[in-house]
Amino acid sequence: MLRFPIATRYSDYDTKGHVNNAVYLTYFEWARLQAWRQVATGKPGLTESDISDPPLIVAEARVKYVSPANIGVPLAIEISVREVRTKGFSFAYRVVAAADDRVIAEGDTVQVAYDYKAGRTMAIPPGMREALEEM
Amino acid sequence: MLRFPIATRYSDYDTKGHVNNAVYLTYFEWARLQAWRQVATGKPGLTESDISDPPLIVAEARVKYVSPANIGVPLAIEISVREVRTKGFSFAYRVVAAADDRVIAEGDTVQVAYDYKAGRTMAIPPGMREALEEM
Amino acid sequence: MLRFPIATRYSDYDTKGHVNNAVYLTYFEWARLQAWRQVATGKPGLTESDISDPPLIVAEARVKYVSPANIGVPLAIEISVREVRTKGFSFAYRVVAAADDRVIAEGDTVQVAYDYKAGRTMAIPPGMREALEEM
Amino acid sequence: MLRFPIATRYSDYDTKGHVNNAVYLTYFEWARLQAWRQVATGKPGLTESDISDPPLIVAEARVKYVSPANIGVPLAIEISVREVRTKGFSFAYRVVAAADDRVIAEGDTVQVAYDYKAGRTMAIPPGMREALEEM
Repeated sequence: MLRFPIATRYSDYDTKGHVNNAVYLTYFEWARLQAWRQVATGKPGLTESDISDPPLIVAEARVKYVSPANIGVPLAIEISVREVRTKGFSFAYRVVAAADDRVIAEGDTVQVAYDYKAGRTMAIPPGMREALEEM
Repeated sequence: MLRFPIATRYSDYDTKGHVNNAVYLTYFEWARLQAWRQVATGKPGLTESDISDPPLIVAEARVKYVSPANIGVPLAIEISVREVRTKGFSFAYRVVAAADDRVIAEGDTVQVAYDYKAGRTMAIPPGMREALEEM
Repeated sequence: MLRFPIATRYSDYDTKGHVNNAVYLTYFEWARLQAWRQVATGKPGLTESDISDPPLIVAEARVKYVSPANIGVPLAIEISVREVRTKGFSFAYRVVAAADDRVIAEGDTVQVAYDYKAGRTMAIPPGMREALEEM
Repeated sequence: MLRFPIATRYSDYDTKGHVNNAVYLTYFEWARLQAWRQVATGKPGLTESDISDPPLIVAEARVKYVSPANIGVPLAIEISVREVRTKGFSFAYRVVAAADDRVIAEGDTVQVAYDYKAGRTMAIPPGMREALEEM
């Protein structure tokens, strides 16, 4: 499991003063990329471009909104690997209030390794698999 | 079921030239609000403020990404009521290519009626229930 | 001059209930793309890709916020060509309340024609110039 | 002058692989809020709500795009006070590549102190003025 403080933006908050529901998928994505760049660096067979923009597509996403995130409350996000299969893998996420770990939202996403040059899904390459094991 | 053309924005598309995964929740929200304003107008007990910014919180959201939406391909969204209970109700969505109805993404959201003045959930008020029946 | 109704999104509005200041550049961009696709279609030398994603870079942008856009108020945007030079051209924009033309924001952007394959600015190609004349 | 690393998001990048032009105003806003919260904390007459969501409106914004920000390149932002008058004040910003200070974008915004309860502009209150002097 990796945990990161979230740099919330004023435009993340809606007319109710809460983080907008769609923004949590952006937080998930940001955490996914932060985590990926951290564990993927130096793994065999991954290019610089793979590290900055990973070769995958998102197949599913789910968010459960537990309590509202008011403006001014610092947030953190936790990401962990839920499952790794042949082509696909899933992550679980928790967005919490950084101060007291109150759960704000939780969810998961399913990704599939994707060969953008060939335009088709692929088996998770060894370097990616190795990286995922460190999350 | 209601169907709307989506006014996609250039910033909806990511480095792969596809609509970013988080943006679909924004499309769902937009469709929800369009549909709501259409069916809520004139219903008993709903204020103008209820109509422009409905008294609800989103409790859950789920998206399944079926095929990528390339830039330049016109999109449409379909929204329908899946279930109405005492306090909560769920919507189902389909984002399709407007020209041939190819499915791009589908999903659903669960909402709970919320009294923002009292700061708590409430039973779905009669006007809202009546409006939901027309979707 | 071309005018379009804006499909505002709930997430465009901030904690004050007004369209967030950064979102106007997104409205400008959307209008620019709508206008471009309308006038560029059928012009000589423009590929389908040029039409859906025009070969230009934005060099400058300016917004003046005149009055707030409250949630629930329908908006429209007007775009017109201000100036066309050898490589660059500028657009002027006005965001207005659709009902009474009250000015919400105005601004302009400067674009430069850009050859993404060669990775450098270029003289405005004839088809693009012809298209700009129709705006 | 204050400087912050920017937590870029995948969705900030567009189909060209560059930060989208509208996102810079969001970076400016984020820097403004970070800076504000840092200097406003503990100043006389400012409530907690003033600190998390400052009592101002943005009147003007300007961005000059100097060089593209490719995905994977860490960014930083610098913010400084340009001018403080009776009711209004302006900030200048520079977005740079964090590693070598190459300028990506620069710009400025004009803000006006705003009394949201009374619904009108106001003279910059002393606590806000004191805070601005520390930026």
